[in-house]
Amino acid sequence: MPGPHRTKDIPKNISSFYSALTQELPSAFQSKQEQQPLMANPDTEVSGGGEQKKAQGENAEAGNPAIPTCQQKVKARLLLLLSYFSGDMEVFAKWMKKQFFLLQLLDWVLRGAAQVMFVNNPLSGLVIFAGLILQNRWWALNGFVGTLFATISALILQQSRGAIAAGLYGYNGILVGLLMAVFSNAGDWYWWLLLPNTVMSMTCPIVSSALASINSRWDLPVFTLPFNILVCLHMVATGHYNHHFPQVLIQPRTEPANITWSEVDVAKLFTAVPVGIGQVYGCDNPWTGGIFMVALFISSPITCAHATIGSAVGMVSGLALAAPFEAIYFGLWGYNCVLACIAIGGMFYALTWQVHLLAITCAFFCAYLGSAIANIMSTFGLPACTWPFCLSALTFLLFTTETNTIFKLPLANVAYPERNLRFFWKLRKKEKLEREEREEEKKRDEEKWRAKEQELLGNNKELLRMERIDGKEKGDGMEGKRMNEIMIQEGEMMEGP
Amino acid sequence: MPGPHRTKDIPKNISSFYSALTQELPSAFQSKQEQQPLMANPDTEVSGGGEQKKAQGENAEAGNPAIPTCQQKVKARLLLLLSYFSGDMEVFAKWMKKQFFLLQLLDWVLRGAAQVMFVNNPLSGLVIFAGLILQNRWWALNGFVGTLFATISALILQQSRGAIAAGLYGYNGILVGLLMAVFSNAGDWYWWLLLPNTVMSMTCPIVSSALASINSRWDLPVFTLPFNILVCLHMVATGHYNHHFPQVLIQPRTEPANITWSEVDVAKLFTAVPVGIGQVYGCDNPWTGGIFMVALFISSPITCAHATIGSAVGMVSGLALAAPFEAIYFGLWGYNCVLACIAIGGMFYALTWQVHLLAITCAFFCAYLGSAIANIMSTFGLPACTWPFCLSALTFLLFTTETNTIFKLPLANVAYPERNLRFFWKLRKKEKLEREEREEEKKRDEEKWRAKEQELLGNNKELLRMERIDGKEKGDGMEGKRMNEIMIQEGEMMEGP
Amino acid sequence: MPGPHRTKDIPKNISSFYSALTQELPSAFQSKQEQQPLMANPDTEVSGGGEQKKAQGENAEAGNPAIPTCQQKVKARLLLLLSYFSGDMEVFAKWMKKQFFLLQLLDWVLRGAAQVMFVNNPLSGLVIFAGLILQNRWWALNGFVGTLFATISALILQQSRGAIAAGLYGYNGILVGLLMAVFSNAGDWYWWLLLPNTVMSMTCPIVSSALASINSRWDLPVFTLPFNILVCLHMVATGHYNHHFPQVLIQPRTEPANITWSEVDVAKLFTAVPVGIGQVYGCDNPWTGGIFMVALFISSPITCAHATIGSAVGMVSGLALAAPFEAIYFGLWGYNCVLACIAIGGMFYALTWQVHLLAITCAFFCAYLGSAIANIMSTFGLPACTWPFCLSALTFLLFTTETNTIFKLPLANVAYPERNLRFFWKLRKKEKLEREEREEEKKRDEEKWRAKEQELLGNNKELLRMERIDGKEKGDGMEGKRMNEIMIQEGEMMEGP
Repeated sequence: MPGPHRTKDIPKNISSFYSALTQELPSAFQSKQEQQPLMANPDTEVSGGGEQKKAQGENAEAGNPAIPTCQQKVKARLLLLLSYFSGDMEVFAKWMKKQFFLLQLLDWVLRGAAQVMFVNNPLSGLVIFAGLILQNRWWALNGFVGTLFATISALILQQSRGAIAAGLYGYNGILVGLLMAVFSNAGDWYWWLLLPNTVMSMTCPIVSSALASINSRWDLPVFTLPFNILVCLHMVATGHYNHHFPQVLIQPRTEPANITWSEVDVAKLFTAVPVGIGQVYGCDNPWTGGIFMVALFISSPITCAHATIGSAVGMVSGLALAAPFEAIYFGLWGYNCVLACIAIGGMFYALTWQVHLLAITCAFFCAYLGSAIANIMSTFGLPACTWPFCLSALTFLLFTTETNTIFKLPLANVAYPERNLRFFWKLRKKEKLEREEREEEKKRDEEKWRAKEQELLGNNKELLRMERIDGKEKGDGMEGKRMNEIMIQEGEMMEGP
Repeated sequence: MPGPHRTKDIPKNISSFYSALTQELPSAFQSKQEQQPLMANPDTEVSGGGEQKKAQGENAEAGNPAIPTCQQKVKARLLLLLSYFSGDMEVFAKWMKKQFFLLQLLDWVLRGAAQVMFVNNPLSGLVIFAGLILQNRWWALNGFVGTLFATISALILQQSRGAIAAGLYGYNGILVGLLMAVFSNAGDWYWWLLLPNTVMSMTCPIVSSALASINSRWDLPVFTLPFNILVCLHMVATGHYNHHFPQVLIQPRTEPANITWSEVDVAKLFTAVPVGIGQVYGCDNPWTGGIFMVALFISSPITCAHATIGSAVGMVSGLALAAPFEAIYFGLWGYNCVLACIAIGGMFYALTWQVHLLAITCAFFCAYLGSAIANIMSTFGLPACTWPFCLSALTFLLFTTETNTIFKLPLANVAYPERNLRFFWKLRKKEKLEREEREEEKKRDEEKWRAKEQELLGNNKELLRMERIDGKEKGDGMEGKRMNEIMIQEGEMMEGP
Repeated sequence: MPGPHRTKDIPKNISSFYSALTQELPSAFQSKQEQQPLMANPDTEVSGGGEQKKAQGENAEAGNPAIPTCQQKVKARLLLLLSYFSGDMEVFAKWMKKQFFLLQLLDWVLRGAAQVMFVNNPLSGLVIFAGLILQNRWWALNGFVGTLFATISALILQQSRGAIAAGLYGYNGILVGLLMAVFSNAGDWYWWLLLPNTVMSMTCPIVSSALASINSRWDLPVFTLPFNILVCLHMVATGHYNHHFPQVLIQPRTEPANITWSEVDVAKLFTAVPVGIGQVYGCDNPWTGGIFMVALFISSPITCAHATIGSAVGMVSGLALAAPFEAIYFGLWGYNCVLACIAIGGMFYALTWQVHLLAITCAFFCAYLGSAIANIMSTFGLPACTWPFCLSALTFLLFTTETNTIFKLPLANVAYPERNLRFFWKLRKKEKLEREEREEEKKRDEEKWRAKEQELLGNNKELLRMERIDGKEKGDGMEGKRMNEIMIQEGEMMEGP
């Protein structure tokens, strides 16, 4: 992992903003890039460390001249401590690089567990595993096995080390492991299930890499598409009546749902919000959902806020489309919206209020799409998985507009909402500075030209006067021509360079 | 809208034909282009105005020397009047640009209504709305609401003004509005329907823009894919048993159709042709279909002819595949073929007789595909919408061949069949002229070289003769070498530059 | 066909290896390439002739100095004879080019029949037709009609002559013809079937060309996707209850399969291997499968081996997923794996042992996918066709890795496994040579620099000594500085250029 020489590149990256912007898209076509753009470039996440430290350094410098009070000291300490655990914990990632391989692998697995929610943070991953254990220990085991083998498979298949270390090969594995356990009809602790679990999670990096080859053409991440493909594959290939690996029976709705609006339970509707967040990992325990919210908050408050908004939007959509209350209480209307709202709201777009509105729109669209996909998939005995999230988020990332308040980050610069925002602001500032500089230069040039012009005009007028005296003697035709020449000269000067 | 400075570009565009052809495809990769290539570049449609005027100007010039008779004058007047209403009415579009915003919006909505059939003409749009009102006023209202909100949404989302003004954001809206009303099971004048109608049509520009980002890589339009996606989305998300927005019940065929060939009604088969055209907008009234044909004829007779051919092909295919007669009478076999035949026959390819045959082939393929897709979609309780048209037209536009009689227009130059043809002819003429010029130059060069060659050869031969006299004295070996040198020199000259 | 001037290009191609590798991918974006990259570039297949001849020439040269014994002579003769019939028989292809058109067409049709298994060899095609006749003469006739009309259609549509001559437009035709006969419910010798058969096989080149336009962006072949699309199209468009062209009834499984492990018939499991190969062409006769294996062996033993491995993997997967025994015996678990294993194992990747393992993995993945797709398609009354093969092979071809032992051949250089391997080895050798050269150059440069350095150092040291003597008189500060300067100079020299 290119740690030290990467941090040097940051000022360069920012100073060469214009070239970056123009080169970003063509370079997306290059085949080399296809090998790593799964969801976010992990190199830049590491390089961000330098940035963060610098920021702290500036804080320290700003604090130095005036002698800091005790409170200020404590605050600075706390902020420093916070910076070690929030965001993508890249100080920890750097320290990890010198550790024992198994410890590193554990770090990658934990990051993989959190990457389902776009969080690259081992602490969040640990909290999430705690939530999973609270829900169901067998599921948690399957999730762990899935993440572990997906990561190992990526190592065997020699995928980009940076992406592996960011957990980008693990998050599909954990979902594959968890959901295969959730949808298995053989009951908990059916140990044979670990066999297809291992096989399917080891296939994850292959499918991820193949999809990345396609999506990278549009600078798009693969999201949880590999998980969706592989879990649907497993469920349809075996089915409800399989002897070895039976699946739960899912059947299409064939009669009107029995909905009585007076029976709606408002308290349950409120718990549907954390349950919706829990359902991202297939968990219906509201406490587990709450723990997941804490895990999100540790890394990025913006992500946590959008997750909550997304879940609420999903719940409201369910009511608007007259869905059965049980499905809403169970969080089935929430989890796709949670992911879609996080992805659009600050993760792949820089967060402005227009983007915030776009994220909410996307969540509504996702809820609608979720209902549609669930109905279609049930024909094949399949759950909706996170197809609605993937398709709606991809649609909203492919969407282009002429406004510059909706800025899609280059995939290589995606980190977490707070840093994405900082990146966006820097670009804007740089842009503004350059514009101002160019304008100033233009002004200076204009002034120079005007001065020169005045000077030349003076000379010319003098010449003219002299010639006029001469011309009086020679005749009028000559003088007229001369006059024209000078006027043309003046005109040219006016235009400047 | 870049009106005046665009017209200047036309001669440049045509003169730089070679560079245009070679740069066309790479530029399709540029991200900037992705923002506007929905179906046809509206800028060129406007710029075409200059061309048309020029053509009129030439007519005028040609007519001036000889004093025009009264008949000729009347004819010229009529042609001029015709040019104001036919084609894409860009004189009107230019005049509109200076008008009140609401009037402009009305122009865009009317163009949007006609763009379903690839017609960029507000008069056609007005006629089409008349046809819709004749069919069903509630449907017409829904169609209007759909077009209006789709256009407004595109304005809010800051999409390309040119594309909006050409109605390219409206045509999906009108279809969404109409078909949601057609497939609603809640009966006419169920006012709540306007709610999802508005939401879905406002989502149109997002889906359009996202699909354009993908399709522009192959220089392909998005056709009615956004409509297909969104109407299917709405219908599947709600379904037949929904409490708020129930859909009509569509079920797969599970038993043989009852077909008695003696019962076929030839008169009804003939009315199936206009009904097929009407079914593009979901209308089964043959008079409405007839009005739509008039609307097409106003803008482009070629389009009208291909629409009729397409509808007839669909009807014949239905008979060939032993479809139930009711479906054929109802125009369900026609509407996709109508659209496919228009798209291939002169709209996106320059119309030659090979392209005409290709368009008929495409219509047959589309009918076949239509039957297949209708059967598949019925499993999910869905109608076929215009998926068959989209897929077959995209297939036939992706198709490449080594013949130069099948010329696919660059998406930015697509206007209406008649102008596309003019564009194609100009290219051909230019190409021919350039080829002739190059050949002439080559000839001239060859002549020059031959002259020089002769001269040099004469000199050399003289030298040779002189040396031969000398050589006789010196020896033979030397002379042989010299002889070879001259022969090589001659050989080189023969080859020329 | 660019025969003679192509053979010249080979040394150039190989010498310009680096430029080739760097230019290969960008050129895949060029639109011109889109016209021919269906499965393998036929031009290089022809050009390969020169290579093969050269190899023979080298053999002959190596044999000349020592007088060959009778045995060696016989062996050489046999090898020469073998080279005429194995591989892609391009000596024969060249000879064919001067023959009567109908004979050429027959050659193309036979090559088309064999290209289903990626074999470009008319003799294999003949053997395959023999196998088909053994299975069912009506099917064989339909297959022949399909290949013939697909090839003729490609000629009419002016597709690349090279691709047609390599049978790349025929293989989808034979599958369309065969499988339409296999899945027809109207019984054998229902002559009307030839009508849709002809129509569908004539549509093949259009669909092939369209898909190639898309897939060429990722340098991918179209495989049997056109066949899959068109046969599914025909089957769904008509269906089981059609009056003209009824299809066999395929229904989804709705109850547990009755599997008793003691009833497994081991002999039948073994015959399932050749039957699986036969099922590629829809044949369930094990002898036909055996004949197909011979056809593969004639052209390429590696292909034959991978076909057998693939079929075995499919059979094992069926057992592992508890599939009904009848389906396994019938070869339904084998044919997709056969194709996937051939495609990955040496055809589109250069065969190393890592690629061999990848091919086996792909075969397992394909078996899994096959089960899933068969279940989904049965909902629509459709067979799985070769969708599982296409999707799994495309996934494994899109997969990228950082190891250089998995080398994906540029599509234009794909021929048959043995020659692909030779191409790969040459590239490696070339690469190695260039690396060594560069290293040697570097060494030489370094030596030069060291020599210069030593010289300069010597001069400097002398100067130093002289100055030291002077310095003693002047003082110490000056000398120290001087010393530093020299040391810096030395350091710079050490680093070299």
